[in-house]
Amino acid sequence: MKVDLNCDLGESFGNYQIGNDREVLPLITSANVACGFHAGDENVMAETVRRAKENGVRVGAHPGFPDLQGFGRRNMDMSLTEIYNMVVYQVGALKMFCDINGVVLNHVKPHGALYQMAVRDETIARTIASAVYDIDPNLYLVGLSKSLLIDAGKAQGLKVASEVFADRRYESDGQLVSRKKEGATIEESEEAIAQVVQMVTEGTVKAISGEVIEIEADTICVHGDGAHALEFVKEIRSRLSEVNVDIVTLGG
Amino acid sequence: MKVDLNCDLGESFGNYQIGNDREVLPLITSANVACGFHAGDENVMAETVRRAKENGVRVGAHPGFPDLQGFGRRNMDMSLTEIYNMVVYQVGALKMFCDINGVVLNHVKPHGALYQMAVRDETIARTIASAVYDIDPNLYLVGLSKSLLIDAGKAQGLKVASEVFADRRYESDGQLVSRKKEGATIEESEEAIAQVVQMVTEGTVKAISGEVIEIEADTICVHGDGAHALEFVKEIRSRLSEVNVDIVTLGG
Amino acid sequence: MKVDLNCDLGESFGNYQIGNDREVLPLITSANVACGFHAGDENVMAETVRRAKENGVRVGAHPGFPDLQGFGRRNMDMSLTEIYNMVVYQVGALKMFCDINGVVLNHVKPHGALYQMAVRDETIARTIASAVYDIDPNLYLVGLSKSLLIDAGKAQGLKVASEVFADRRYESDGQLVSRKKEGATIEESEEAIAQVVQMVTEGTVKAISGEVIEIEADTICVHGDGAHALEFVKEIRSRLSEVNVDIVTLGG
Amino acid sequence: MKVDLNCDLGESFGNYQIGNDREVLPLITSANVACGFHAGDENVMAETVRRAKENGVRVGAHPGFPDLQGFGRRNMDMSLTEIYNMVVYQVGALKMFCDINGVVLNHVKPHGALYQMAVRDETIARTIASAVYDIDPNLYLVGLSKSLLIDAGKAQGLKVASEVFADRRYESDGQLVSRKKEGATIEESEEAIAQVVQMVTEGTVKAISGEVIEIEADTICVHGDGAHALEFVKEIRSRLSEVNVDIVTLGG
Repeated sequence: MKVDLNCDLGESFGNYQIGNDREVLPLITSANVACGFHAGDENVMAETVRRAKENGVRVGAHPGFPDLQGFGRRNMDMSLTEIYNMVVYQVGALKMFCDINGVVLNHVKPHGALYQMAVRDETIARTIASAVYDIDPNLYLVGLSKSLLIDAGKAQGLKVASEVFADRRYESDGQLVSRKKEGATIEESEEAIAQVVQMVTEGTVKAISGEVIEIEADTICVHGDGAHALEFVKEIRSRLSEVNVDIVTLGG
Repeated sequence: MKVDLNCDLGESFGNYQIGNDREVLPLITSANVACGFHAGDENVMAETVRRAKENGVRVGAHPGFPDLQGFGRRNMDMSLTEIYNMVVYQVGALKMFCDINGVVLNHVKPHGALYQMAVRDETIARTIASAVYDIDPNLYLVGLSKSLLIDAGKAQGLKVASEVFADRRYESDGQLVSRKKEGATIEESEEAIAQVVQMVTEGTVKAISGEVIEIEADTICVHGDGAHALEFVKEIRSRLSEVNVDIVTLGG
Repeated sequence: MKVDLNCDLGESFGNYQIGNDREVLPLITSANVACGFHAGDENVMAETVRRAKENGVRVGAHPGFPDLQGFGRRNMDMSLTEIYNMVVYQVGALKMFCDINGVVLNHVKPHGALYQMAVRDETIARTIASAVYDIDPNLYLVGLSKSLLIDAGKAQGLKVASEVFADRRYESDGQLVSRKKEGATIEESEEAIAQVVQMVTEGTVKAISGEVIEIEADTICVHGDGAHALEFVKEIRSRLSEVNVDIVTLGG
Repeated sequence: MKVDLNCDLGESFGNYQIGNDREVLPLITSANVACGFHAGDENVMAETVRRAKENGVRVGAHPGFPDLQGFGRRNMDMSLTEIYNMVVYQVGALKMFCDINGVVLNHVKPHGALYQMAVRDETIARTIASAVYDIDPNLYLVGLSKSLLIDAGKAQGLKVASEVFADRRYESDGQLVSRKKEGATIEESEEAIAQVVQMVTEGTVKAISGEVIEIEADTICVHGDGAHALEFVKEIRSRLSEVNVDIVTLGG
């Protein structure tokens, strides 16, 4: 049994530092690199690709809405053509930094509001899947487990990676509980880790309703902000290891 | 004898239309496509690449400073690393639109203030040449005839294309007369066309000082704004044809 | 009987020209000036305020979403605090150009998607009304006739101006027919002018359903793009004059 | 004897946090608030003005180049008209947040590259002074002691505040030693504090050449980043107090 650990990286911008890229890189297997629209800039991208390579971490693109102020977390009402081109532009820019550094771009994961809209809206999901396929049919498309984005990726003929979240609670339909609702996040490390182990080894998760639902866990989304987050990732690695789950990159 | 005709295209942005892309495309052989920093956006880029392909016009990238308000014409004091990454990002984004459309990216020409700084500053010239080479050693680097940018391209091992301007006057050192000085541009069509023909067929131009200097004319920069500009391009084509100069793309 | 004629102005940006400000200014009584977020920049604002003053046209602020690429026409999911501050920032910036030029800022009209969201969402309407009131309780708030934005302005204690559109059709609830539907705009000049005259003189309009509904017409929104638009504005002025309606600015 | 302590505040942007505004506010008397071009955004501005008010700290505007990625530290070649309008726009936006909060805008200090260009270029200095005067002739203009910016402010009829730097070394002409040279900054706290005390109480400073030059010290620029910086500000306050220098705001 195996699973990938992914983390959003390269979100600094100019003089603004965010995240904990150096410390989290040795702990993960896939880096989702911001591409300059919602976060990141070309200098951060260059640096992030180099560091990922040094750490043997696979690189993916993390395209988002053109909204630096909102960090790509505010829904924007863009046309499908606009979304398609926005993905092509951002992934293309990142891919060039990969090419120059002899790094293979391995996956694409939409960011923030774009991700949330794609898991719920079939037309957006298909548009993103189509852009990713046109860029490179060998890319993995990363999306929420059991979501329309995963369906769209499969329908397009892409390899897909179903993503789960260690510290988020699930609705009974497999969606994440909205951050606007109570109980959206799991505060207790122990509970979160138990959820991860169950998702990876049993393919199920207990929804907020109490119901046990099916889930696929190809990759676990973790965060690198703060000492606590790093400890948490280490603990996940250790506990998965105890139950004989290998932490390996997508396709690895 | 042969020469390329290039024009800056894809400079519209969102709701803002600029230039006369549809009309000028049938008249030129190389399109310098803006990449979203000083002009253009991902939707305009997608459209421009498609139209260039339909017209059999070769596509090049036209990277510029991150200054949409100033249209990339205001000098910015960026570090060499920033310039390198800025070129990689922009060319990478455009190249992906080319790849998706089965179009080969043929050249890179820096835009506006970046171009002007590169033809005068050896370190900037080398940085751009190095970025272009790292992106693809088969790309043409387009720069002002007899300039440091052309030297840097050659030193880097790139194919270079020396650019001349139909309607601009030259200093005796081969630089363009600054637009801030009188006599920077040639107002008379007849005089401009005669200058073009001389540059292409004799490899010389009469500088503003009266001196005749050597020049190389691999590609002529033309503009598409306004009916007058289009007529002027047609006239250039016709007159070059009369003296048996073929209008063919770089490397064509 | 009297009515104001308003037009969106100052929408150019840097090198990008849009609209027909010089020609339309002599024909209108209120200018809605873009404030640099969805269109316009500080140089365009300075110029527009000066030109409006020269033409004796009252100046209003036209704040919009921070989305130059989308021209402020794409819905963005911003918090109420963000909307409040966004309005304060933009109106504050424009007001300073007014102050420096000895011009009184007369009104505020939200732009594009912000306008459309405000006429339908009570919390956004109240937030905008509250920001305008805090900026200056003497400002007019311009909004769609019979909409939540007008209600919010009145509840806030602001002077309001109900806006009507010459060339748009109405739903039976007083909303504009969405541009995504057929029949959204009136193509025939004669029909549009008849609609204007009826709205101003009778306070009614025939909805797309055939029903005649009540409307208030304090100000008519006109456009300046193209020779046709200018002719149309002249015709509106002439026809209103024939039925003894004065074209005067808000509060004039 | 008295002196003002100023600090650059409100430099966060969207999700990006920078500086230590809460901790440094109780220690200073003037806040230079970023206005959304090189740093800051409307939400940060609103919050910063409120916090300054709560702490009894006077608010000034800190306009900079439109270059968020470069944090306003990269020279940009803008025309004088562009600089004038850029200052008016930014100060106008900030002033509205002041007005709404019942706070009097007290000063303007150009930021970063704009500041450095203004202290060396007479035309830029005059342009900024003219913009500040047109906005409000009662504003203080803050600039490098003995610089062209101070001269321009006086010539314009503005109140000026000569600024000194605790931790920077000076050239014999009163300019700061460029950060690109060795010895630009004073690393030893004790030496920096001794320099401050000398500048404030004796009106002199020892230049990097060894020469003692005259200086005016109306306001000291301090930083709030990191625990060390805060300790340093506390130490400055304590040492100035020992030599009977009052820390009071400009005009206070």
